Amino acid sequence: MPIAKTRATPYYAVIFTSIRTPGDNGYEHMADAMVEAAAKQPGFLGVESAREEIGITVSYWDSLESIAAWKNDAMHQVAQQAGRETWYASYKTRICLVERDYEFSRI
Amino acid sequence: MPIAKTRATPYYAVIFTSIRTPGDNGYEHMADAMVEAAAKQPGFLGVESAREEIGITVSYWDSLESIAAWKNDAMHQVAQQAGRETWYASYKTRICLVERDYEFSRI
Repeated sequence: MPIAKTRATPYYAVIFTSIRTPGDNGYEHMADAMVEAAAKQPGFLGVESAREEIGITVSYWDSLESIAAWKNDAMHQVAQQAGRETWYASYKTRICLVERDYEFSRI
Repeated sequence: MPIAKTRATPYYAVIFTSIRTPGDNGYEHMADAMVEAAAKQPGFLGVESAREEIGITVSYWDSLESIAAWKNDAMHQVAQQAGRETWYASYKTRICLVERDYEFSRI
């Protein structure tokens, strides 16, 4: 997974920070499917994800409307419910306006 | 590292996404020192971090002024330069206004 090549600011970010319950219980499969499905949504700009003690997934979007549409997507709703029932001990979701960005690369 | 207990919205987030160069080269020591130093800065609200293929560190702040002050901190400037010269192949920094948040916990 590379650093997301998002467009010029402003755009939106959803920071999803989570702590998992023990065991996989189908999580990895669903997480991969959710990233794949999110990438097909209108207004999707990119995603970045890493997990150690906590997991952080940041998805980038063109508007609050696109974020709301993805939150309400039928398959995503099923995954969200399974997240609360099975996969996550706790999580926090933050909806953010990306006002400014800058980058560095050796290449 | 728990999920950051940030205050009520609005507040700011700095999403720092990076790809490391091979080898430690003093990185872990400096990274720990930077988190410790950031936590002592005025306006610091919390930090979350995880690394797999990419590293994601999100720090939370009360204002753009606090973010600018930390960026310009003398020790942090030294670390930023070493980051560009040694530790990072590439990185992207995004300055964000957190407009809304919500959370879930089993406990």
